[in-house]
Amino acid sequence: MLERARELDAADSIAHFRERFDLPEGVIYLDGNSLGPLPKASRERLHWVIDAEWGEGLIRSWNELPGGGGDWIAMPQRVGAKIAPLIGAQPHEVIACDSVSVNLAKLIGAALSLNPDRNVVLSEPGNFPTDLYMIQGDTRVEQRLAPRDAMVDALDEDVALLLLTHVHYKTGEMFDMEALTRAAHDVGAIVLWDLSHSGGAVPVDLNGAQADLAVGCGYKYLNGGPGAPAYAFVAERHHGDFAQPLTGWMGHAKPFAFSDEYEPAPGVTRLLAGTPPVLAMVALESGVELIAEIGIEPLVAKSRALSEFFLECCVAHGVLQLPSPNPLPQGERAFADELDLVSPRDPAGRGSQLSFRHENAYALSQALIARGVIGDFRDPDILRLGFAPAYLRFEDSAEAARHLAEVLETGEWQRDEFATRAAVT
Amino acid sequence: MLERARELDAADSIAHFRERFDLPEGVIYLDGNSLGPLPKASRERLHWVIDAEWGEGLIRSWNELPGGGGDWIAMPQRVGAKIAPLIGAQPHEVIACDSVSVNLAKLIGAALSLNPDRNVVLSEPGNFPTDLYMIQGDTRVEQRLAPRDAMVDALDEDVALLLLTHVHYKTGEMFDMEALTRAAHDVGAIVLWDLSHSGGAVPVDLNGAQADLAVGCGYKYLNGGPGAPAYAFVAERHHGDFAQPLTGWMGHAKPFAFSDEYEPAPGVTRLLAGTPPVLAMVALESGVELIAEIGIEPLVAKSRALSEFFLECCVAHGVLQLPSPNPLPQGERAFADELDLVSPRDPAGRGSQLSFRHENAYALSQALIARGVIGDFRDPDILRLGFAPAYLRFEDSAEAARHLAEVLETGEWQRDEFATRAAVT
Repeated sequence: MLERARELDAADSIAHFRERFDLPEGVIYLDGNSLGPLPKASRERLHWVIDAEWGEGLIRSWNELPGGGGDWIAMPQRVGAKIAPLIGAQPHEVIACDSVSVNLAKLIGAALSLNPDRNVVLSEPGNFPTDLYMIQGDTRVEQRLAPRDAMVDALDEDVALLLLTHVHYKTGEMFDMEALTRAAHDVGAIVLWDLSHSGGAVPVDLNGAQADLAVGCGYKYLNGGPGAPAYAFVAERHHGDFAQPLTGWMGHAKPFAFSDEYEPAPGVTRLLAGTPPVLAMVALESGVELIAEIGIEPLVAKSRALSEFFLECCVAHGVLQLPSPNPLPQGERAFADELDLVSPRDPAGRGSQLSFRHENAYALSQALIARGVIGDFRDPDILRLGFAPAYLRFEDSAEAARHLAEVLETGEWQRDEFATRAAVT
Repeated sequence: MLERARELDAADSIAHFRERFDLPEGVIYLDGNSLGPLPKASRERLHWVIDAEWGEGLIRSWNELPGGGGDWIAMPQRVGAKIAPLIGAQPHEVIACDSVSVNLAKLIGAALSLNPDRNVVLSEPGNFPTDLYMIQGDTRVEQRLAPRDAMVDALDEDVALLLLTHVHYKTGEMFDMEALTRAAHDVGAIVLWDLSHSGGAVPVDLNGAQADLAVGCGYKYLNGGPGAPAYAFVAERHHGDFAQPLTGWMGHAKPFAFSDEYEPAPGVTRLLAGTPPVLAMVALESGVELIAEIGIEPLVAKSRALSEFFLECCVAHGVLQLPSPNPLPQGERAFADELDLVSPRDPAGRGSQLSFRHENAYALSQALIARGVIGDFRDPDILRLGFAPAYLRFEDSAEAARHLAEVLETGEWQRDEFATRAAVT
């Protein structure tokens, strides 16, 4: 398979972007869906901002510096505008700030402000936990959960907001954004899409789907650095009307007038709360610029090709059958030496990841990491492998599949050292 | 005065800590109350975290790395514990996360959870805007404002929370934390202190004052970098009972169990919402470590001495009379060539800053910046000069006073170039 992989790499039109990342030697990094690697330009830019803008410019860097640079105050909008084309939004509909969780609180509040006579927020069980937890934290809201196949039936005129994660963090399964948005609108509900596992990895067309609200993550496929700020989207048609509860001074129409009364800034700027975290924002901007430079279309095409090739390699190694009995009922075990694909078989129906169920998924993930193949584990039994197209090679797919097959065949995952759970899994 | 200044510098027991900061040549930095300068150790540590922990360690750095370092997951608690001794708190009562604004939302919610039958939040007009705006954003809350001299009378049994900023951002005036806390407790109200202009600069004893809740800023006297994460305090006696509304996954008892139901983590960990911003947190930790190493007592003593010496120099230059007619009624103008001190005359009654009212305070601040003396302006008529004791010299106080006197005497602040307001003032 290695020879075939090298042919595919040679034909890959975006292969050279790998050089723009600082990837450690001896590592095949299949966890860019959790934390993207360091772009070389981000390191340069961070060093510059630390030394010159913070160190030399000091407080003056909040404004534009005479020689260029600084202008920290404009970063949330500027970075948001650079994210916009990756998710089918207009530049002034997106802003970078805070975390996904905090932005969920704002946009749940925004939905209630747009739908003031309703209080139900509908989501699905097994959604990424923070999406559900932020619903549960809002004392004004009643949470309703429905499984995917019953989602449309669960939409009624009590639903203020449908809050779904576009690509499921565990399985990679993708919702039909347009169909679900339409169904929600049919009953007068607002829709909020969590794009954490979508932005920069799969095609997203928020405005094409008529979406109302969205949030997304900066530290996964956008390579914005550990704990990077998140982003939030509000469709232009709601800009005049929406309110949000975290009414901090940076979201004020005139923050430096220091007035006692809150007056929301126009558009998405009112989503700002506190002072933006400059260093984190700089890293995010640099990561986004690189992904935008590569372009979403070639990224999506390569993502699909990489993961399909990985499956092909696994089948060739005899550790995967396709079609696989997908998914096994929860609790049933796969054979210890075989993988059970839980991600959708159709690459257009999944995110940029492949997830496999295995009774010993944790030990398996640890055994792979010991071989330099870094994927991750999701409780209780999911081995999750991300295929971030900006820097991975087909050779990485082939080699990762070989390592996985060897780990399964040798049973080396059974070694004691792979059994102990770390604090962060 | 310069000779006297140099004697004072020679006798200053913490003078050598100035070497630990990266201060630009030709600048007298009197704005550490707005953005602290870059500690040299922070630059080193940031470079290390970017290159080694993010670049090489990648996702593995969330756990402790084999050779040490990493352990990003523990940073909010670890940094909080390092801040605790600076504010009279126990290590497990403080956590670093999010912005002051976002933490205010959490702690206003916490106060309501502890005082569920009340809904009034009492504060003062002219408080730092975000404190008031966050009250106004919570739809469950009724805001009540009372001026300082009527604050105790405004406390009654409708008040769920008294929310005050310990050191006023504009005037530097300091509240008597112990007396106000006692008065609030007498009517059954919870107290939340905003320590943004206090932590690392003035004596704060949260537990000595029996305070319930507090927030504070990381990027001022703690030198945590632009937009550094903030911190939040909850007194141990409330740890069993309080809830907060921004119930993100990092505040869950078992975040990596990915359960559908939110279950709060013990103690202040439940204040976490989203994934911590690692780069920003690293800079904060490094800044806090330096301030903690110097120690709060010598910092406070030097802060008072520096600002008193500045006043002495201003009097000697003939641009300030003491006692000054403090404060002039709003709207009345001081003589154009004379300063009007609006900060309390007693250094023990003010923060680490001096504020002067002047009709042309903005132009004055710009003329000073042009001379390399960086202070700031607060709308509409306040020139604010911070005396951060960790790196300033008495020589800086003397020279800043000389520049200020010259700017007033020459009238150079009247030049056109100093009239145009920048985006961030």
